[in-house]
Amino acid sequence: MPRSGAEARRRLQQAALELYRERGFDRTTTAEIAARAGVNERTFFRHFPDKREVLFDGEGDLRAALMREVAEAPPGLQPFEVLLHAFQKAGRILEDNRPFSEPRLDVIARTPALRERDLAKAASLTDAVAQALRGRGVADRLAALAAQTGWAAFHHAARAWIDDPAQSLDAHLRSAFEDLRALAATAPPVRGRPAR
Amino acid sequence: MPRSGAEARRRLQQAALELYRERGFDRTTTAEIAARAGVNERTFFRHFPDKREVLFDGEGDLRAALMREVAEAPPGLQPFEVLLHAFQKAGRILEDNRPFSEPRLDVIARTPALRERDLAKAASLTDAVAQALRGRGVADRLAALAAQTGWAAFHHAARAWIDDPAQSLDAHLRSAFEDLRALAATAPPVRGRPAR
Repeated sequence: MPRSGAEARRRLQQAALELYRERGFDRTTTAEIAARAGVNERTFFRHFPDKREVLFDGEGDLRAALMREVAEAPPGLQPFEVLLHAFQKAGRILEDNRPFSEPRLDVIARTPALRERDLAKAASLTDAVAQALRGRGVADRLAALAAQTGWAAFHHAARAWIDDPAQSLDAHLRSAFEDLRALAATAPPVRGRPAR
Repeated sequence: MPRSGAEARRRLQQAALELYRERGFDRTTTAEIAARAGVNERTFFRHFPDKREVLFDGEGDLRAALMREVAEAPPGLQPFEVLLHAFQKAGRILEDNRPFSEPRLDVIARTPALRERDLAKAASLTDAVAQALRGRGVADRLAALAAQTGWAAFHHAARAWIDDPAQSLDAHLRSAFEDLRALAATAPPVRGRPAR
């Protein structure tokens, strides 16, 4: 039996991830997760409300890190500069935990029920990031747009990093924001006229 | 009793929307929706698999319109130009149906179960848009990033249009892409150095 609550929690997460990969999310029960983690099912439910949440334990840490980094980014930065800064800092949580992050993102991408939960979490994090930008004085309308499009770039970079670990998440983030700038530079200025 | 299948379908959608607004999604049953639409519950399930899907009937039309407009946009346009073009054309589906679109988006925003479904649909539409961009020869990596960030701008414009109907969806779309260009222009070029 694991000694501490934190250790049980970590083992439950690892067991769930392994089982979801081996036999699929739908065919895994909480009892099986508990058994593999060496705890009983009650312990599972002391830590997690359901089979999905066991893979989203890091959301609170990520949210806290993003809010803090947006708030504490150097003054004078523009919204996307603030976001890149915050994503770089918060992305270390993913990087430090790559052995868990990588199969986790993979299982989520392949499981509709987990993907829905992931999208809902992302939408909630995006709202939080928009709020943090407003707290820096970014106009309401721009804050929401910056948070949503910036998050899309972050998400894109995280997927690219999973596919291509030869480059750091930091490098992928930088590429994504550079690509976004190149893409946006050719957006139609007025009346949809091609801007070239 | 409604005469045709199409008429029953339309009445079921209208009845569901009204009931979700009056008493909330969670407290509405399929039997109640059917009763208000003047059909029996079996008819409900002939048209929709569940209580959520009844509000997502337009997804097929929107998907088809987006795919077609991306494919048929004038040659030589850059990715965001193609997307703005496609969103403007496909957005007419929302505009033509504002009396339904507006309360629908409002109910979705307030109901977690509907919001999850909406996010999953949006993610699937985004993948389809990326595929359509690839079909135009846009590089794989750029197609995914353009679709995800462009979709975020579209979503943002649709919300702005609901809040401020004095301007057309078209005008809101144009503003969103212009704002995105302004935001992205200040993204850090290299090494996170502020670009001003």
